[in-house]
Amino acid sequence: MDKKLIGVDLGGTTIKFAILTTEGEIQQKWSIETNILDEGTHIVPDIVSSINHHIALYNMQVEQFVGIGMGSPGTVDLDAGTVIGAYNLNWKTLQQVKKVVEQETGIPFAIDNDANVAALGERWKGAGENNGEVAFITLGTGVGGGLVSNGKLLHGVRAAGEVGHMIVQPQGYLCTCGNHGCLETYASATGIVRVARDMAEEFAGNSKLKQMLDDGQEITSKIVFDLAKKEDLLGKMVVERVCYYLGLACANLANLLNPSFVVIGGGVSAAGEYLLKRVNKYFQEFAFPVVEKTTTLKLAQLGNEAGVIGAASLALTFK
Amino acid sequence: MDKKLIGVDLGGTTIKFAILTTEGEIQQKWSIETNILDEGTHIVPDIVSSINHHIALYNMQVEQFVGIGMGSPGTVDLDAGTVIGAYNLNWKTLQQVKKVVEQETGIPFAIDNDANVAALGERWKGAGENNGEVAFITLGTGVGGGLVSNGKLLHGVRAAGEVGHMIVQPQGYLCTCGNHGCLETYASATGIVRVARDMAEEFAGNSKLKQMLDDGQEITSKIVFDLAKKEDLLGKMVVERVCYYLGLACANLANLLNPSFVVIGGGVSAAGEYLLKRVNKYFQEFAFPVVEKTTTLKLAQLGNEAGVIGAASLALTFK
Repeated sequence: MDKKLIGVDLGGTTIKFAILTTEGEIQQKWSIETNILDEGTHIVPDIVSSINHHIALYNMQVEQFVGIGMGSPGTVDLDAGTVIGAYNLNWKTLQQVKKVVEQETGIPFAIDNDANVAALGERWKGAGENNGEVAFITLGTGVGGGLVSNGKLLHGVRAAGEVGHMIVQPQGYLCTCGNHGCLETYASATGIVRVARDMAEEFAGNSKLKQMLDDGQEITSKIVFDLAKKEDLLGKMVVERVCYYLGLACANLANLLNPSFVVIGGGVSAAGEYLLKRVNKYFQEFAFPVVEKTTTLKLAQLGNEAGVIGAASLALTFK
Repeated sequence: MDKKLIGVDLGGTTIKFAILTTEGEIQQKWSIETNILDEGTHIVPDIVSSINHHIALYNMQVEQFVGIGMGSPGTVDLDAGTVIGAYNLNWKTLQQVKKVVEQETGIPFAIDNDANVAALGERWKGAGENNGEVAFITLGTGVGGGLVSNGKLLHGVRAAGEVGHMIVQPQGYLCTCGNHGCLETYASATGIVRVARDMAEEFAGNSKLKQMLDDGQEITSKIVFDLAKKEDLLGKMVVERVCYYLGLACANLANLLNPSFVVIGGGVSAAGEYLLKRVNKYFQEFAFPVVEKTTTLKLAQLGNEAGVIGAASLALTFK
């Protein structure tokens, strides 16, 4: 009998679920709202009851499942299956996720942080082509990362894969982490807007972006890229600077890990080939020759589904 | 019966050998000169006959050995057991090392490149404390590296661990690899002298180092550090700049891998705590807070023996 996997992608606004084959094909998917009230105490019970409900709904048995895998914000203890410090979930104290889920579903449970899980998803079924050497960078509100080498996620002591906190400009912008010049301060969605505001101040030419900023209009990273694609002068300069830092970070990452693919995902990566081409230009400038020839930059392919797919793959260890 | 390991550290001037227990204790060691004549065709036969000679000398049997491990310069193909492009050995064409050694000794053979093998040695029996998460940086004529995560060396597609070619100063010094601003151009033995010459040009104070450079005397990285320790003004400035780039590179490495230890070895590391303290200052400035708390910089402990010990550890896979 073909056994199935369950993947859970826990986010601040929704919790996504999927039932997958052990080959990673999604067979069912659904989602519920994340109820962060009462210090997030409803979250784990909601996950459990949603899983149990859907197992019953699809006339399936607990024995048909290899395991449940989940990606979570916050600091995850893989072995204990606990999470702490997931502030967007109101989880300030230690959450016994694995213990409760296994008790209430009767299915083995594994957990990792959301960036790592998205990396596993893209690696398994997306741009990573199931290769054993894949780095994943996600450009969203922040910049996250997940690194796979020798076919396994790298965790280090606790916080490997902090791609967003690589220093690309010593004495650069102040980051929320307290350091200066982290990649995140330039290449996250908010970082790009920050670069735009900064460069606009010294820009004296003709630019719609400049006008919008001077008018006090709301600017997003998407607007910056869209205007750049339409040949807006300031927009092009901002994109060039952002891609310079991204290319430098990708090159230094690749000089250390020499992955087959550096996969770029997250909201900002919606800028597509326009972004990739420019990051690649700087990557090629800064990568060690052998690395430049053997590591390829790619856009992510799975979008929102990377999380549930990667989460489900955590459960393959129970196979 | 306790089986033994053989470690071979192949260098451009000497070949070091050791017989070790499977716990990594050296029981016998010897070395021979590297004969690079005739396109290095004598090297593998010399290794084989030296091993066979010493096995007989110590009244040992082939069956007493788990395996032979070797570290080599050049580009190593781990699976095929071949080496190519080791120019300091005059090995320009593909060398069938594994095939010949196994045939002529009857002992299983494994090989990796010299920086990786030194990393394995320091990780196993030196500063790495046999931890599963260790990064090794060697500061010699060049700057090399070896990265261990999840208890295994990272190889990437081909060239993981190129720590010396991380870009620490875009548009900086031209490197032999063709890129600009590689760590190696500032922090290798020759890089340090280059920084000294450069900074001497603009230096106008009182300095023995400045005098020596102006007099056309031969300068080494050791002289730079020795003078800095004696409060030479220019010497101190040079050391500060070198340690800044080393600290930045160590931080970016640790932001990605969060190893338990970043171990600094090679000839330049003879500067000891004086070097470590200053690298650490910049490491702390640039490392992500969790990384700063969990990753420790250390000096290498094994010196020249790291190579044979790490090489021998490759043979543990045959156990």
